[in-house]
Amino acid sequence: MGKKRVMLPAKDVDLSSVKYEPEIVQAPRLTGFLFRLFVRLLEAPFIGSLLLTHLKKENKINELLRHTVIPEEPMFKPEYPPQEKEHDVVVLDEDGKPEDRVKSALNCLPHYDPAKLWENSSAPFQYWKIRDYAYAYQFGKVTPSMVAERIISIIEENGIDKPPTPLLLSFDAADLRKQAAASTQRFEEGNPLSILDGIFIAIKDDIDCLPYPSNGGSTWLHEVRAVEKDAVCVSRLRSCGAIFIGKANMHEFGMGTTGNNSNYGTARNPHAPDRYTGGSSSGPAAIVASGLCSAALGTDGGGSVRIPSSLCGVVGLKINYGRMSMEGYAAMLGASPANRISMKPSTPCLPTLSFNDDTDALGSLRIGIYTPWFNNVHSTEVSDKCEDALNLLRKAHGCEVKEVVIPEIMEMRTAHLVSIGSECACSLNPDCEDGKGAKLTYDTRTSLALFQTFTAADYIAAQCIRRRIMHYFLEIFKKVDVIVTPTTGMTAPKIHPSALKSGETDMPTTGYLMRFVVPANLLGFPAISVPVGYDKEGLPIGLQIIGRPWAEATILRVASAVEKLCGESQKRPVSYYDILRAN
Amino acid sequence: MGKKRVMLPAKDVDLSSVKYEPEIVQAPRLTGFLFRLFVRLLEAPFIGSLLLTHLKKENKINELLRHTVIPEEPMFKPEYPPQEKEHDVVVLDEDGKPEDRVKSALNCLPHYDPAKLWENSSAPFQYWKIRDYAYAYQFGKVTPSMVAERIISIIEENGIDKPPTPLLLSFDAADLRKQAAASTQRFEEGNPLSILDGIFIAIKDDIDCLPYPSNGGSTWLHEVRAVEKDAVCVSRLRSCGAIFIGKANMHEFGMGTTGNNSNYGTARNPHAPDRYTGGSSSGPAAIVASGLCSAALGTDGGGSVRIPSSLCGVVGLKINYGRMSMEGYAAMLGASPANRISMKPSTPCLPTLSFNDDTDALGSLRIGIYTPWFNNVHSTEVSDKCEDALNLLRKAHGCEVKEVVIPEIMEMRTAHLVSIGSECACSLNPDCEDGKGAKLTYDTRTSLALFQTFTAADYIAAQCIRRRIMHYFLEIFKKVDVIVTPTTGMTAPKIHPSALKSGETDMPTTGYLMRFVVPANLLGFPAISVPVGYDKEGLPIGLQIIGRPWAEATILRVASAVEKLCGESQKRPVSYYDILRAN
Repeated sequence: MGKKRVMLPAKDVDLSSVKYEPEIVQAPRLTGFLFRLFVRLLEAPFIGSLLLTHLKKENKINELLRHTVIPEEPMFKPEYPPQEKEHDVVVLDEDGKPEDRVKSALNCLPHYDPAKLWENSSAPFQYWKIRDYAYAYQFGKVTPSMVAERIISIIEENGIDKPPTPLLLSFDAADLRKQAAASTQRFEEGNPLSILDGIFIAIKDDIDCLPYPSNGGSTWLHEVRAVEKDAVCVSRLRSCGAIFIGKANMHEFGMGTTGNNSNYGTARNPHAPDRYTGGSSSGPAAIVASGLCSAALGTDGGGSVRIPSSLCGVVGLKINYGRMSMEGYAAMLGASPANRISMKPSTPCLPTLSFNDDTDALGSLRIGIYTPWFNNVHSTEVSDKCEDALNLLRKAHGCEVKEVVIPEIMEMRTAHLVSIGSECACSLNPDCEDGKGAKLTYDTRTSLALFQTFTAADYIAAQCIRRRIMHYFLEIFKKVDVIVTPTTGMTAPKIHPSALKSGETDMPTTGYLMRFVVPANLLGFPAISVPVGYDKEGLPIGLQIIGRPWAEATILRVASAVEKLCGESQKRPVSYYDILRAN
Repeated sequence: MGKKRVMLPAKDVDLSSVKYEPEIVQAPRLTGFLFRLFVRLLEAPFIGSLLLTHLKKENKINELLRHTVIPEEPMFKPEYPPQEKEHDVVVLDEDGKPEDRVKSALNCLPHYDPAKLWENSSAPFQYWKIRDYAYAYQFGKVTPSMVAERIISIIEENGIDKPPTPLLLSFDAADLRKQAAASTQRFEEGNPLSILDGIFIAIKDDIDCLPYPSNGGSTWLHEVRAVEKDAVCVSRLRSCGAIFIGKANMHEFGMGTTGNNSNYGTARNPHAPDRYTGGSSSGPAAIVASGLCSAALGTDGGGSVRIPSSLCGVVGLKINYGRMSMEGYAAMLGASPANRISMKPSTPCLPTLSFNDDTDALGSLRIGIYTPWFNNVHSTEVSDKCEDALNLLRKAHGCEVKEVVIPEIMEMRTAHLVSIGSECACSLNPDCEDGKGAKLTYDTRTSLALFQTFTAADYIAAQCIRRRIMHYFLEIFKKVDVIVTPTTGMTAPKIHPSALKSGETDMPTTGYLMRFVVPANLLGFPAISVPVGYDKEGLPIGLQIIGRPWAEATILRVASAVEKLCGESQKRPVSYYDILRAN
């Protein structure tokens, strides 16, 4: 029994009295034998429930969800009034042929200048981007088959598809050669399908892509769920000529933010092989950061694209909730063919952006920051670099930076945890009851044990919180166009060797990694992570730009400007060969 | 651990192979000491959880929600494509003044013939309906103050606002006189506000109506939630001149279908004082059935208006989800001022209907029935009388009766239970944690103990079921215009004297009472119960007409026609004086 707390209606909360509460996560950090023991205790009938109750009490979860009167109605999916269209944005008909849509989209990009890549061979390191490949294919400097052979040899020589540090969980050289040969032939015949023809793309293991199984990073999902066709996003890319190199590594079922995967081995950060890539889209981000592909598709239900993009020094975009079909997404779905996740869009990782940044539009841009949140990071290097980027942006384009106040950030975090955790448990329950539970990683089992303690009433209370948080953000978006934060509260965390075999629980690290990503998921807003520099150990730092509903173009514009200002000289990542040697 | 079951997508289910499974509810029937002991066991830490797990297992609840792969996405609120407007229906602007809207609505009613009431004094019994009062006031045959005095004397002489059998939980004679005097004066000045001026209406105890507290049938809600203004529905009626006689009895927090209320005493069925009224809107239905008021407002989240209307022999309408503002509804909300219930519309009980039944429209009406469900009743008297009504309708108007198939009725029941139960638990949790739990009736505590075992994942799975059931009903509504069932599977159940002091648990009776009401709540459809006759003990039988989304006019038309055909000679209910004597 505890004292009841009554919340004021969100619209009556006095923002001037809001105080930021630095996040304190109370949970043990465990690896190895102790971790495995801990998981077994969590799963034991009575002791487990006591442990989890204690954990939730320490983190004030039940206090918020069971002892608090929340006056708002529940909001089960992001809801907001119809939004004004962004300026100078052409919206393409979703029913149009993908190759035609890509062609129209190309008109929005700046003129491509091949000189930069082809004549500036003195640059320390440069990624080949989509348009670089397209140019090279068009002018016969290289063919998709030649690139495929190079990629296959890198993969095979470096064991990129094998333990202990795989970037790919499924790989089929013959299939890759076949796709590349078809693309090469189209170029030979002068009929490439689109600018994406011959572009190599990696697909996260929770998105359906033939001929591969979708395992969501687990060992058994393929046993209960056959892949019958490409996911919609994959099928569209395929009809544009894109070439899929295989299924990329991930944190099992997306239920973690480091990328630790004890089933297949943990992907390493291309900037520091002893560090995590971040997750859950560990493989997609690391593959792009290594320069192996120009793009990869991931999923982002709680920062899962933005976190690894930030930690690996690439661009990670989370599009608006509802922007695209989720057909063919397997993660968190157990054997179910449908998508149940209310906050999960398909999202690309890219090495860098190429976007027509309209400088005029940036001049009138109002950027919101909430300073005490912005600065609540593990090392000030992170917030300093992000602040530097903002200052550059302000000086170069005259954007206005305005202080905003975001109340109830802790409540937001809890609402997100309960929402995504519950949907996750719902999807995995039938297979777990069917005996697959013991085949999950200890990581997943820890999360699942927690998620299964959430009651239906907790879930509804979390949705009432969601309505409050939506109110606060929509009010803020009346005053500013974007909200800017560091993407993560820390740079890539070290991998403790003891965490490799059976994973780990490290909630404080999770707290730092997820500190800033949650609102875009809970509220369905678009958000992007863009590299802004490196800490003194050479680890990438990402800036996050959160847009108002459906305003992807705005955040892309801002990100592109930031990249131009900060990202000129990119660091050469470590080759996967180096990573293997380091082990 | 149990075997996983994989459901086919709803759209692929072969309806020709569907078999109706007669509902079997496995639970003990308990009253008195054993019931109180049972509740204490349910609430005990370990034994309670074991008991509830057993109960849920017997009723296959976890089997459905945890062991089954449901391919549909969750549907948290009723969702359907935009609906065609009904024929010959004028939709009034919701922003219009209530008195103007009532005036426009009057144009849709048939000509009023006072002769029937005033010249036919040989009829065994006749209710005074709204237009009878309006006529009497208009022509000075009686004044609202005269009626008020009569009502006050009936209430006071019969202890209608007092234990042991109250119909009203809050009553203030002075306030009633004041309202009546104001109305009388308006008539004297020739300026009545609308046809509702001077009409006496009872308000269920979970709807805010000044100057009364809203207790939702509990003893303590007023302590944590002050009523600051009328609910929207009350305020609109008030501006039309309606007079509110007080707050009507109900099953505590609407969490039961008999109307048993051990806090204040249980309302008795005006047709048999040893029987339940049905619930949860026990007071509203019984007040209208007694002839004390021409209308009452209730709430219907799981049949709570239709069940008591059916059992008391009056008309009960559940309007479409979203049809009207829920501001000012207290039930299931604990101290929260907001409405969280996704399936709960405001709904009137009326003694009989007065509706312009367009006979032409009825000729082309297609009525759906699902025979094995229709006939799954406690006594064939119920289904026979309902079938008789259908036959009369067919003969009189040439409607077509078509057999339909409704799959997964058991799953629908579970989805509804989990949905409404979880929302209920969410609303009551903060006050229960604050020590109010022990002040709930044993009835409510039983339900709450069950509801608190539902996990967040159960809730989401239930919403996936909701999407399936919506699919089936929308498909059926392509072939028929209404679906017709008995309103309840039995007539008014006997009150066991041992159940009066501390309530009872009787899930089989609940099963009969709720058998047919659930789809309109889970899916948000309008539905109406209309009396069609009596069983051999003289207990009323109701026919339920379920309409497609927003099709209130259609079900009102059908109900009005049914009433004309079946309800000509209504039985005189027992006076409340008789009820008191019987005790």
